[in-house]
Amino acid sequence: MQALIQAMQRSRVCVGIDPHSGLLTSWGLPDTAEGVREFSLRVVDELAGSVAALKPQSAFYERFGAAGITVLEETLRLARARGVYTILDVKRGDIGSTMGAYAEAYLRPGAPLEADAITVSPFLGPGSLAPAVDLAREHGKGVFALCLTSNPDGPSVQHAQRDGVSVAKEICDWAATANAKAPTVGLVIGATVGDAVVGNGLDLVSSQSIILAPGLGAQGAQASDLPGIFGDALPQVLGSVSRAILKLGPGKMASAVAEFEAK
Amino acid sequence: MQALIQAMQRSRVCVGIDPHSGLLTSWGLPDTAEGVREFSLRVVDELAGSVAALKPQSAFYERFGAAGITVLEETLRLARARGVYTILDVKRGDIGSTMGAYAEAYLRPGAPLEADAITVSPFLGPGSLAPAVDLAREHGKGVFALCLTSNPDGPSVQHAQRDGVSVAKEICDWAATANAKAPTVGLVIGATVGDAVVGNGLDLVSSQSIILAPGLGAQGAQASDLPGIFGDALPQVLGSVSRAILKLGPGKMASAVAEFEAK
Repeated sequence: MQALIQAMQRSRVCVGIDPHSGLLTSWGLPDTAEGVREFSLRVVDELAGSVAALKPQSAFYERFGAAGITVLEETLRLARARGVYTILDVKRGDIGSTMGAYAEAYLRPGAPLEADAITVSPFLGPGSLAPAVDLAREHGKGVFALCLTSNPDGPSVQHAQRDGVSVAKEICDWAATANAKAPTVGLVIGATVGDAVVGNGLDLVSSQSIILAPGLGAQGAQASDLPGIFGDALPQVLGSVSRAILKLGPGKMASAVAEFEAK
Repeated sequence: MQALIQAMQRSRVCVGIDPHSGLLTSWGLPDTAEGVREFSLRVVDELAGSVAALKPQSAFYERFGAAGITVLEETLRLARARGVYTILDVKRGDIGSTMGAYAEAYLRPGAPLEADAITVSPFLGPGSLAPAVDLAREHGKGVFALCLTSNPDGPSVQHAQRDGVSVAKEICDWAATANAKAPTVGLVIGATVGDAVVGNGLDLVSSQSIILAPGLGAQGAQASDLPGIFGDALPQVLGSVSRAILKLGPGKMASAVAEFEAK
C-alpha cells in the first residue's frame, strides 16, 4: 500500500476503467473484447501520469470470457509498465484455500492478473479475508474491503448490528488491527453515504486505512461533500470517479481529472 | 432452476470441482492450467451421469489468468454437452450495470462462460443482485445467494440484525419474494451451521429455495446431520461435497458418490 500512499501525495483521484457496452458505443468502439481492449489501453495511456490509481472493473472483462481476461492481463501489464498503481475491482470473497487461490490470482508477483491491490467482499466475515491480507502484506500490496456502500440496499447488511456493533464498524476495527503491522487494508466507503460513517461509529483515523470513495461525479457526490462525510479522515480519502471522466471520450479525460483534482 | 429440480429427483449430491494445488499434486498432475484442464475434464467425464450438479470453483481457474479461464470455458462446455447441471461458484456481488455485466458473463445463453447457475454474494444488500436474478429468471437459470456459512467468521455478518431481523433472514425472505414468480433463487447454507437456521428464524420451506449445502465430508458434516439442521426443508437440500470425493482420484469418484447418495 506504500506505493499508493506515495502516489496520493500528487493526486487524490482514482479513475475506474469500466468498459460497459454503453461507453464502448459512445466511444465508437464495438461491444467486443477488441473494443474493450482499445478502450482500456487508451484510458491507461492517457491517464497513467495524472491519477493516483486506475481501477479496472473485472466484470466488464469477464463478459467476454477468456478473450476478455486476456485484455485484462494486457491492461494490467500496460499500467504496471507506466508505473501507475492498479486497484483491480473484483470484490472477491471466499474462505480458506479458495480465498487463498483468489489472492494468488491477483496479488502474487508474476501472476498473469497481478495488480497492486484488489477489492474484496467480507460477507463471510472479515476474518475470512486473511489469506488475501497476508499475501498482500508479504508483497507490499493492498486489499480494499467493502465497508459502507451508497446503493440503497447496502445498509440492510452493512448497518446490521451484533452485540451493538454494526457490520461496517466491525470491518473498520478489523482493518485497524490488520494495519497495525503495516498498511495493507483499505476500506471502500461510498462518497454518498451521508452521515453513515458517524452513525455507525467508525473510527477511520485510527484504522489507518486508505479510503476508496466511489460515487464522485455520475453517482452524485461532489468533492466538496467529502469533508462532511469523512471528517478528520479526509487526508486518507482517495476519490474514485468513472463515468464522469470516461464519458468525455479519448483526448479529454486527463484535463477533466485535473479539474476534479482542483476541487 | 427447473432443470436442477428435475435432476434432484435422481440425485441429491453436487460435487465441487476444486482443482487446488494440493489435489493436482495428489492426482499426479502439474500445478498449471494444463493440469487443471486434465483434472476438470476427468471429473466431468466421470461424474456427469451420477450427480445432480457439478460446481466448478472459479478461483482455481482465475489463478492462471486467461489460460485458466480458457479451461473453465472448456469445462463448462463439456458439462453442458454431457447434460449435467452446472453451478459456477463465483460468489459475485456488485451493483447496477456492474452486477448486470456479471450476469451477462455467466447467465446469458451463448456467453463463453455460460453456466446453469452461479453463486452470488449479497454484501451490498440482496436487492443489489436483481440484475442477475432477472436475467436468470428470463432464461430459466439460477442464482444461489450466500446466506448462512459455516466458517467461524460467517456469523459476524450473517447473524447481525437490523430492526430485529438478521441478515440471513432478510436474504431468505428476499428469496421467497423472488421465487414467487418462478423458482430462480437458491440459498447457500452450510451443512455445519448447527441451529443457526432455527436461531435466525429462517422459513426455508416458504422460501421455495433449493438449498446448496456445502460442508459434507472433509468439512465435517455427515448426511445424517442434515435433517437436524434443515428440518422440514430437507427435500430442498442439495448436499455439496468436494474434497472427500476428489481426493479419491480418478476412477474412484463415481462409486463414492453413490455411497454418499445412499446415506
